[in-house]
Amino acid sequence: MKEIAIFSGSAHRELAAAICHHLEVPLAPSRVTRFANDCLEVQLLANCRERDVFVVQPLVPPVQENLVELLLMLDAARGASAARITVVMPHFAYARSDKKNAPRISIGAKLMADLLQTAGADRVLTMTLHSPQVHGFFGVPVDHLHALHEIARHFRAGDLDNSVVVSPDLGNAKEASRFARLLGLPVAAAAKERLSDDKVVISSIIGDVRGRDVVVLDDEIARGSTILELLDRLAEQDVASVRVACTHGLFADGALQRIGDREDVTEIVCTDTVPVPHAERSPKLTVLSIAPAMAEAVRRIHNGESVSVLFDEH
Amino acid sequence: MKEIAIFSGSAHRELAAAICHHLEVPLAPSRVTRFANDCLEVQLLANCRERDVFVVQPLVPPVQENLVELLLMLDAARGASAARITVVMPHFAYARSDKKNAPRISIGAKLMADLLQTAGADRVLTMTLHSPQVHGFFGVPVDHLHALHEIARHFRAGDLDNSVVVSPDLGNAKEASRFARLLGLPVAAAAKERLSDDKVVISSIIGDVRGRDVVVLDDEIARGSTILELLDRLAEQDVASVRVACTHGLFADGALQRIGDREDVTEIVCTDTVPVPHAERSPKLTVLSIAPAMAEAVRRIHNGESVSVLFDEH
Amino acid sequence: MKEIAIFSGSAHRELAAAICHHLEVPLAPSRVTRFANDCLEVQLLANCRERDVFVVQPLVPPVQENLVELLLMLDAARGASAARITVVMPHFAYARSDKKNAPRISIGAKLMADLLQTAGADRVLTMTLHSPQVHGFFGVPVDHLHALHEIARHFRAGDLDNSVVVSPDLGNAKEASRFARLLGLPVAAAAKERLSDDKVVISSIIGDVRGRDVVVLDDEIARGSTILELLDRLAEQDVASVRVACTHGLFADGALQRIGDREDVTEIVCTDTVPVPHAERSPKLTVLSIAPAMAEAVRRIHNGESVSVLFDEH
Amino acid sequence: MKEIAIFSGSAHRELAAAICHHLEVPLAPSRVTRFANDCLEVQLLANCRERDVFVVQPLVPPVQENLVELLLMLDAARGASAARITVVMPHFAYARSDKKNAPRISIGAKLMADLLQTAGADRVLTMTLHSPQVHGFFGVPVDHLHALHEIARHFRAGDLDNSVVVSPDLGNAKEASRFARLLGLPVAAAAKERLSDDKVVISSIIGDVRGRDVVVLDDEIARGSTILELLDRLAEQDVASVRVACTHGLFADGALQRIGDREDVTEIVCTDTVPVPHAERSPKLTVLSIAPAMAEAVRRIHNGESVSVLFDEH
Amino acid sequence: MKEIAIFSGSAHRELAAAICHHLEVPLAPSRVTRFANDCLEVQLLANCRERDVFVVQPLVPPVQENLVELLLMLDAARGASAARITVVMPHFAYARSDKKNAPRISIGAKLMADLLQTAGADRVLTMTLHSPQVHGFFGVPVDHLHALHEIARHFRAGDLDNSVVVSPDLGNAKEASRFARLLGLPVAAAAKERLSDDKVVISSIIGDVRGRDVVVLDDEIARGSTILELLDRLAEQDVASVRVACTHGLFADGALQRIGDREDVTEIVCTDTVPVPHAERSPKLTVLSIAPAMAEAVRRIHNGESVSVLFDEH
Amino acid sequence: MKEIAIFSGSAHRELAAAICHHLEVPLAPSRVTRFANDCLEVQLLANCRERDVFVVQPLVPPVQENLVELLLMLDAARGASAARITVVMPHFAYARSDKKNAPRISIGAKLMADLLQTAGADRVLTMTLHSPQVHGFFGVPVDHLHALHEIARHFRAGDLDNSVVVSPDLGNAKEASRFARLLGLPVAAAAKERLSDDKVVISSIIGDVRGRDVVVLDDEIARGSTILELLDRLAEQDVASVRVACTHGLFADGALQRIGDREDVTEIVCTDTVPVPHAERSPKLTVLSIAPAMAEAVRRIHNGESVSVLFDEH
Repeated sequence: MKEIAIFSGSAHRELAAAICHHLEVPLAPSRVTRFANDCLEVQLLANCRERDVFVVQPLVPPVQENLVELLLMLDAARGASAARITVVMPHFAYARSDKKNAPRISIGAKLMADLLQTAGADRVLTMTLHSPQVHGFFGVPVDHLHALHEIARHFRAGDLDNSVVVSPDLGNAKEASRFARLLGLPVAAAAKERLSDDKVVISSIIGDVRGRDVVVLDDEIARGSTILELLDRLAEQDVASVRVACTHGLFADGALQRIGDREDVTEIVCTDTVPVPHAERSPKLTVLSIAPAMAEAVRRIHNGESVSVLFDEH
Repeated sequence: MKEIAIFSGSAHRELAAAICHHLEVPLAPSRVTRFANDCLEVQLLANCRERDVFVVQPLVPPVQENLVELLLMLDAARGASAARITVVMPHFAYARSDKKNAPRISIGAKLMADLLQTAGADRVLTMTLHSPQVHGFFGVPVDHLHALHEIARHFRAGDLDNSVVVSPDLGNAKEASRFARLLGLPVAAAAKERLSDDKVVISSIIGDVRGRDVVVLDDEIARGSTILELLDRLAEQDVASVRVACTHGLFADGALQRIGDREDVTEIVCTDTVPVPHAERSPKLTVLSIAPAMAEAVRRIHNGESVSVLFDEH
Repeated sequence: MKEIAIFSGSAHRELAAAICHHLEVPLAPSRVTRFANDCLEVQLLANCRERDVFVVQPLVPPVQENLVELLLMLDAARGASAARITVVMPHFAYARSDKKNAPRISIGAKLMADLLQTAGADRVLTMTLHSPQVHGFFGVPVDHLHALHEIARHFRAGDLDNSVVVSPDLGNAKEASRFARLLGLPVAAAAKERLSDDKVVISSIIGDVRGRDVVVLDDEIARGSTILELLDRLAEQDVASVRVACTHGLFADGALQRIGDREDVTEIVCTDTVPVPHAERSPKLTVLSIAPAMAEAVRRIHNGESVSVLFDEH
Repeated sequence: MKEIAIFSGSAHRELAAAICHHLEVPLAPSRVTRFANDCLEVQLLANCRERDVFVVQPLVPPVQENLVELLLMLDAARGASAARITVVMPHFAYARSDKKNAPRISIGAKLMADLLQTAGADRVLTMTLHSPQVHGFFGVPVDHLHALHEIARHFRAGDLDNSVVVSPDLGNAKEASRFARLLGLPVAAAAKERLSDDKVVISSIIGDVRGRDVVVLDDEIARGSTILELLDRLAEQDVASVRVACTHGLFADGALQRIGDREDVTEIVCTDTVPVPHAERSPKLTVLSIAPAMAEAVRRIHNGESVSVLFDEH
Repeated sequence: MKEIAIFSGSAHRELAAAICHHLEVPLAPSRVTRFANDCLEVQLLANCRERDVFVVQPLVPPVQENLVELLLMLDAARGASAARITVVMPHFAYARSDKKNAPRISIGAKLMADLLQTAGADRVLTMTLHSPQVHGFFGVPVDHLHALHEIARHFRAGDLDNSVVVSPDLGNAKEASRFARLLGLPVAAAAKERLSDDKVVISSIIGDVRGRDVVVLDDEIARGSTILELLDRLAEQDVASVRVACTHGLFADGALQRIGDREDVTEIVCTDTVPVPHAERSPKLTVLSIAPAMAEAVRRIHNGESVSVLFDEH
Repeated sequence: MKEIAIFSGSAHRELAAAICHHLEVPLAPSRVTRFANDCLEVQLLANCRERDVFVVQPLVPPVQENLVELLLMLDAARGASAARITVVMPHFAYARSDKKNAPRISIGAKLMADLLQTAGADRVLTMTLHSPQVHGFFGVPVDHLHALHEIARHFRAGDLDNSVVVSPDLGNAKEASRFARLLGLPVAAAAKERLSDDKVVISSIIGDVRGRDVVVLDDEIARGSTILELLDRLAEQDVASVRVACTHGLFADGALQRIGDREDVTEIVCTDTVPVPHAERSPKLTVLSIAPAMAEAVRRIHNGESVSVLFDEH
């Protein structure tokens, strides 16, 4: 079998190192130079020739820097005669730009998918895309994992007798429903109403939450405004407690602190698809590692074993 | 300006003729031959050279026949030196195959988008795709219209004082909400629950419908099982009357008759994106023509005018 | 060596099973769903990842259905990370649409070759294309077999002392001549004349056939009109007996019965590149299996051995 | 309408000049430099920007030199922002390499079609391809003319009362038959037999030629061995006279003289798709110009008029 | 003639406005949104359909931000059916990454050229690429201007009697020599020597500079270390005065101030291909505008006139 | 590991044989046929299926013949299902056409890179490209070797005490400088001045050469005019002796004899990237073989080992 070579961009070296640790493979070194004119140059410092190359780089802020660095790494691997190049991108920020909801607008997710292919990507390994249709934007094979098992395992460790899973959004209700089934819990969902172009309110919560221990599940939390408004609505229904969980913890503009400051919130759970600065971490935050799952997927891709069997791909 | 040439495949000649009528352009003749070995051959019988060619062919049953015929027409137009080839496809049946919800499954919508491009399509004009992300599957420019204005105009003609718009599905609720705003009505939505792999039930209706005149709005009606179940749920809430509207009236397996047989249903409204056999039409059915809208879009595409301005593209 | 996975579309499962039997490999299961809107969805039910995937699907009637199903299977295999995808297409009906003999006509064979590549085909294994130039329409490698050895072996079993091979068409004369050499027989050919656009007659038979036992050889028989007219001309020359052989037995519009009803025809021989319904088979019909040859070609492709060495590729 | 710019490569400047003369357009100048290392460089010496560029270059000996020069001209026109680039290639020598009749052989016609497209050709105008299927090798639109009208007009000028058209080859019989219909003459054809790999003999002439004035028609004459052998067979049948006609007069290895030296041959007719050196011309040779036909096709392509209408494209 | 639409990215709106001013065309508005997750979205706010679209965006710091914004703008223009999309990129920072001078290194210039094409660029208008070969990296037509006429015009205004042009580098000597010819001056050049990987010294100045008024000409000045060292060497030769000129004034890390602080430097001249912050400008700095030249090139591209005629393209 | 198959075109069979000798692999046979119409046909006479195919063909005069033959060989190998096709092209003559230094000119190097890819090349192994940027013209991975070690080894064998390396051109000075470092020698360079379009003179020699033993190093020698003029300039400086070395010895128009006839030239050294006819060889000529280096690179490419490690790739 061709040898494996795993490189990491600058976006999340900690995750790349963890994946390599689980695979018992060294993280291959690389060098990124920034010239006086702000251009980047990448040099891969381990042999790629006829290797099965993986490049770990979630598309997280600073997104544009991380994107161009990733494209240069793919180009360097291709020019160095890699046998196959897989992008390991646990978070794909541009997945939210998935439709043309205004005239003459860019569809960023499709463009990024095309750019990755132009730069040399032969396949992509990713997690919890914002909408499942984004899978179809890629011309190369995609393995699309989710972290529901990891998150469910965490919650199963506690008492769930009086709990209910709440989706902050009807669009995410299907995912919340799958998660609730894993935990054997009922599900509820918030219905949003758009008052004006920049003002969205939660008009009602569908399903019974009164007095319950609530587990809020979302795919990602960025500024957290929806979550914060949901917390107000839940408070009105006298819920017993709230725990907030998501796959991608972007936590922009102090979202982590603002949610954590709420007394009714007892825990915030996310995974490490996005790096959370250690300085920002609080006692309420639990970060679950998807490195073991990613490592297993990399191993299966490398060995040509089914990934869907393992991860219940969707 | 280059001349226009509009051809029609076999799928919906009536619509093509209506579009041409509105444009005051003759429908260009073509010939489809089926050989003894079941292969098709297309000959376009009007000059295409340096013409702005439009091929009208919704992807409706028999889908595979209509698809291959369309691909052959595109190929013939390209080989005949068309300056530009636009597929006018008011219904794109494969749009429903838009995600990989099981391992090793085909993503039909993406494949069809690629095949159209391979056969020579330079752009696509379509209407109410099942999910907006399908837009991004195309590598060529897409004009994506909707028929909400046409349907709203129809309903505005009657008394709407006691009415409410109901979406049979949370996934379509956003569209129903836009429609309701056009009519100045409140909106409600049904929540589905999947009992098993092949059994879905409507568990509740979110929003107030009791005693109201209901306008059900869906993007398409195929077998109509969801609609029929929704009618049961609405009946339980003693609604005053029900009218059912959709853009794409596929009406498979006798759906039209089964819905029309319901006494509480006073009207079924669809557009002519999909041909409804005259034999199957009933007094309760109203077919609104999208030919004027399609014709105007064709005219604007041909003249290089903005399509989004007119149709509030989404 | 990477493992092999052989799937079959709906066109000819019997042949796929026979090929698998000869290779001592199980036929991998797949599932085709037809939705209410007539769209197809394919799911491959065996692991394809890094496998050497073969999809068996002759393009036979219903051609459009079989074509789209095949394209979806290729797409599913590609999305499932197959290492290589080979289309095993013993009959390629669209091969007859190989030239532009009228203005603005589709060249179906070229389009289908392009579509197969777009959907993911990495190579093609086929048999007796209508014209050898069709090979060049494919951008991917093609292994082009013929069945002359199989057919010759069958005829060699009988008495050939007084026999002559007759081609019903000058266009097929070269192939008939190769076949005659395999049997050590002389060759003759019919010359067609086009009276009008839809009327072709055989004006003469070139070569000596009087009183001989005739073996007619054609590449395919569809409606059989040429064969029936040739039989009339042969009868005028008092031939002793006639046996009719072809590679592709499409037998449309009752051709099998109409030829079999002729008393002077003692045997009709074809191969199983095209499925012949068991109900239509008659005592005069002999179906030779090309499954062993196809299986050996698949084996050699999988192992990277020369296919031309074995089959005297042309 | 965009302006036209017509350039000529080195292969046949006389023809390019004649086409320009008929179009009343100046031949745009270009410069070809051969460096000390035998590389060519092309510079187009007239503005191409947004022009409708035509490059006249039949693929005739020295084929490789002419091919590479043509590819460089296309590249220069593309780099200079031509709006459209049409290759005017009245003879396409590689069209004979159209099938894979031996293992591991190049299919030159397909490769050249691909190379022309890679270098920037947007469309091709050609004449009498060796087999009609070669049309399908091109991914770009092809206008495929023939010279039968020009040749027929020449023969119609004389007495044809006792004449017959003879095809030297069954493969060309269909073309000869079309030609005969234009002249209202009967047709006959020679049947070749391959004795060994490099020895082909004409075994018989099908049809009645005895005592007739024979017009031999072939698509091209290269070494002329087939023609010379046909002349022997015709002599055995006491034909009254022989005239030899072809579209492409390559006349390699002294073929023109060897055919002209035959007393029974009264005239050799070809067109100027291939340049015939003035020194080699003999009193028996008549060269018909296809420049008017080519010019008319260029005019129609430039104006977006139908070419097929005029030339009875096939 | 199709209408023109000129958009500007964020990199250099001042230049875009100046180009529009010279063309007497309004700058078309656009909107760039940065989401909470740091992704960008572009909306073009003027009709692009069948327009001749130009996007002005030099690749200057922040390079990665400007690059991705540019790619999104191209994607939006393509999706909005632009007839043609030209990137107006007066400075292409990645042009310096033009060769593989270490193993497994990215060739950024080639990758960026490919990405621009993937995103929808039909042609590129640029100025003074770091090496002329970079032109060949683009698969689309490139108009490659230079600013020597603008810079020469500036210097011609003063007294040049005792002047000499000096190139700080042998690699730029050819350009300096062309510039010197425009001014009728002699030329000299510095020879660099690489002492170690990160230490380069100027070992000698070839040509006579002693006591002269020196005009230093370089293609770009980034950190300015080479220029500063050249100034030391020139001082050793007692030059009378020094003026420093370049096309691309990147002036990183305080280069502008460090050069301006030198007493022997009387003037620094650059063009506005790169925006120089007004705050950093000093009395010694002269910024020449290339907007008139760019505008004229845009006008000629739009009208299909020769650009090379005007600008002495190289 | 997949088996290797090495074929040779007609350009330099001796080198191909030498490479095979060093690899202890037989040279696979092939057949090139030239038809009467001057077209070439290639047949590869050894199995290519799933083989790792290498085609040895430097692009040397007759360049056009060798190029087309190479393209046909690549096409044949691809059609014969080669697993990977590497072009071994030690000399790439068209590399000199690397920039657009006049309007509407072809950039031959880029076009040839594209043609090789179109014909099926998966990677390229080459040596000492005229400019390093040409590497970036290829869309496929390139291994770019140089012969400095081979040439240096030769010179190290003699006395170098009083020697200096001289580059005939500033453009090649960097390479000469690397070579000088390998030998521990100082370096000098000639400065050319263009008097008119076709007249270039060496105006000066930068660096100290008087009385020295000169080693002239150039990348290639074609007509040798620069070298001959350099020899005149060196003679003026009373150099002790001159030896001339280059990688690519094209020696056009009697260059070898004209240089060899100079009494001050004691040795001419080149490598065998270009075949030097044995008849033209003189006692002063030394041809160093790069076959061992090429063989080692082929071996490493085949085995997936790093090539850069060995050859100090640049």
